[in-house]
Amino acid sequence: MPRTLALETINQVGKKVTLSGWVWARRDHGKLVFFDLLDRSGLVQVVAGAEAGKLSPFDVVSVEGIVQERTSKTVNSKISTGKVEVKAEKLIVISTAEELPFEMSVDELKVNLPTLLDYRPLTLRHPKVKEIFKVQATLIESFRSTLQEMGFTEFQAPAIVPVATEGGSALFPVEYYDHKAYLGQSPQLYKQIMVGVFERVFTVTKAFRAEPSTTARHLAEYVSLDVEMGFIDDWSEIMDTAEEVMRGIFTAVAKNHGIETPKLGKKIPRIRLSEVTNNPDLSPEEERQVCEWAIKKEGSELVLVTHFPTSKRPFYTYPDEKDPKVTHGFDLIGRGMEWITGGQRIHNYKQLVENIKKWGNDPKDFELYLQAFKYGMPPHGGFAIGAERVTAGLLGLANVREASLFPRDMERIDFRLT
Amino acid sequence: MPRTLALETINQVGKKVTLSGWVWARRDHGKLVFFDLLDRSGLVQVVAGAEAGKLSPFDVVSVEGIVQERTSKTVNSKISTGKVEVKAEKLIVISTAEELPFEMSVDELKVNLPTLLDYRPLTLRHPKVKEIFKVQATLIESFRSTLQEMGFTEFQAPAIVPVATEGGSALFPVEYYDHKAYLGQSPQLYKQIMVGVFERVFTVTKAFRAEPSTTARHLAEYVSLDVEMGFIDDWSEIMDTAEEVMRGIFTAVAKNHGIETPKLGKKIPRIRLSEVTNNPDLSPEEERQVCEWAIKKEGSELVLVTHFPTSKRPFYTYPDEKDPKVTHGFDLIGRGMEWITGGQRIHNYKQLVENIKKWGNDPKDFELYLQAFKYGMPPHGGFAIGAERVTAGLLGLANVREASLFPRDMERIDFRLT
Repeated sequence: MPRTLALETINQVGKKVTLSGWVWARRDHGKLVFFDLLDRSGLVQVVAGAEAGKLSPFDVVSVEGIVQERTSKTVNSKISTGKVEVKAEKLIVISTAEELPFEMSVDELKVNLPTLLDYRPLTLRHPKVKEIFKVQATLIESFRSTLQEMGFTEFQAPAIVPVATEGGSALFPVEYYDHKAYLGQSPQLYKQIMVGVFERVFTVTKAFRAEPSTTARHLAEYVSLDVEMGFIDDWSEIMDTAEEVMRGIFTAVAKNHGIETPKLGKKIPRIRLSEVTNNPDLSPEEERQVCEWAIKKEGSELVLVTHFPTSKRPFYTYPDEKDPKVTHGFDLIGRGMEWITGGQRIHNYKQLVENIKKWGNDPKDFELYLQAFKYGMPPHGGFAIGAERVTAGLLGLANVREASLFPRDMERIDFRLT
Repeated sequence: MPRTLALETINQVGKKVTLSGWVWARRDHGKLVFFDLLDRSGLVQVVAGAEAGKLSPFDVVSVEGIVQERTSKTVNSKISTGKVEVKAEKLIVISTAEELPFEMSVDELKVNLPTLLDYRPLTLRHPKVKEIFKVQATLIESFRSTLQEMGFTEFQAPAIVPVATEGGSALFPVEYYDHKAYLGQSPQLYKQIMVGVFERVFTVTKAFRAEPSTTARHLAEYVSLDVEMGFIDDWSEIMDTAEEVMRGIFTAVAKNHGIETPKLGKKIPRIRLSEVTNNPDLSPEEERQVCEWAIKKEGSELVLVTHFPTSKRPFYTYPDEKDPKVTHGFDLIGRGMEWITGGQRIHNYKQLVENIKKWGNDPKDFELYLQAFKYGMPPHGGFAIGAERVTAGLLGLANVREASLFPRDMERIDFRLT
């Protein structure tokens, strides 16, 4: 008999169905045993005989039975299938589960962060944890579809790179046959090359940073949503695109997951860095403050901070013609955290070679990248979104690790490193 | 004046437009100079004055002018905009390009493989090369959309892993802070863990193999399209899903790119390995032979070879109950090349632990993975598609490197390694 999903039972009252899934909460009432069966569609209550009293949470079972309406007294308005239940006629245990190391109730998962990660295959099954990664899937899908509609082409950026793209620090070295290579800190150079090919490109890729500390906002490996666009008339177009992408994400996440997404107002406010701070970069405290300013002034929980200093940005950043000490570089701060970094890039070959030298690098190491500029590059720019940071921001998670399925940091790769 | 794309000129006859793009072929006719302007939409012919005689291929220009119909004699039926041309009134050179190291004509790009890759930012701009990666983008997008429609959830697999997943050979070691880690050879263990969470999952990710040789079919870093599904009744469902994904890809590629995709017949034929060869695996020659058999017998250019021997498959492969010397493992061979590997996996915790030991590994190294099985796993299986191999197969490319934007192998990471 073909499998019926838990959620489908709503429309099957009176019919015989076969369900398969995991045993979730069990409640014994004398000869009757109630348990929730969990599958990819959700939960449904199963009523079984005393033999079900042996079932443990996360046992995998198959249930053949009749869908029946619950009495008005027993309707559970908290779940989508709360008006029905399945009266089991046949119960098969497919796999048994060991005793759980901690309690998992539907409403909450009371474990600390190390335990959450030490038991990742188990804790990921909790509906609240699962939802984080459903939201992330929606976020990434929306990122792609918004850009596809705008004429962007997806490309696959390499992870192993021969040189440091943005300075030599925080790199993971790779033993590459008899050579030394690195894990890319960003697909920056490749996405710029791809502007020469498709004009407008994006990629969903891994970026790697050997951060020497463990903070609540950094991951050693993260999902970077990268965009680059050519033939811009003004660098504000890059920020416009970032704004459109974020609006698309918020709309999709609100629609599919019923989450209250950040308010944006008519337009995300833009403010020069020098109006926010005298420092060359924003401190976490200043990131919170500028967000408060944006909410008060424009009713927006996001804010674009512009004109970061040339000295603090990578060699490829486009200097402002009127004041070359600052760049056409911006950060998008969302709910007090940097979500996006972007800017216009230098497209003139000679200027770029000069800058590579000025930043203390050897143009020889950037030969492939520089070819794109040797053979004609249009004015262009782009940005990168940290997928885990935006996920955490949308869901109010305290630590970015909660928004990474298998977070890597100084202290952990699946296991705690000792 | 807002930019008009080359392709949009078809509907703008008599109107003034501004185009931006790269100079492609130039033809001087005395006082008149013709050149093709290339942008992301395609080519359009520009008619300019003598000043355009200085233009070089891949100079980036902006052209203001009037769209006019060509005379019937000068219509070019080879290009979509062949009925019109743009009479330039204003020509601005935005970036200049250096002289090309080799000729690039629209029809062909006559360079050998090393040159094709040494000049990647340039050769990628050739329409025929560009098309390879447009097809690849369609392929990947179709992979995702077919699976989303079937209830699969996308997830992001990590690239850095603590242990070898499928044996210790061909791994790239990473210096991970003070520890040694590796680049994942496949997201196998993670996608199985994710079956415990979402039942049906897929990921588009990088996989890394330190292949000790350079063949026309291997890459050190490739794009793996990975699928895993739980609650199967029979392992044929895994092959059915692989077939549905491939049909979706072929339909999308044929529709969007007008490419003649492999014939499939009503159903991709399935044949036991032992019926093809006495060896434990297929040689490249046998892969070609079994494809010929499938074409003759069933009119299909794809074939599923099943029941690979247990000794040749990874520890997690499900052994056939009737004959434990063979597995529920399969390969999909397309046009004489392995495109997909897949199979059913062991879902019983104890059996899996036993197999890990039998394969000479330490269950301790697989602690996180094994947790998924400790807490109840359903019968499941999946497969992985090599994106570059299928791209190469669909387009008849001789070497898989041609289907990788920035191929990595023993001899090259962007640069030739010396």
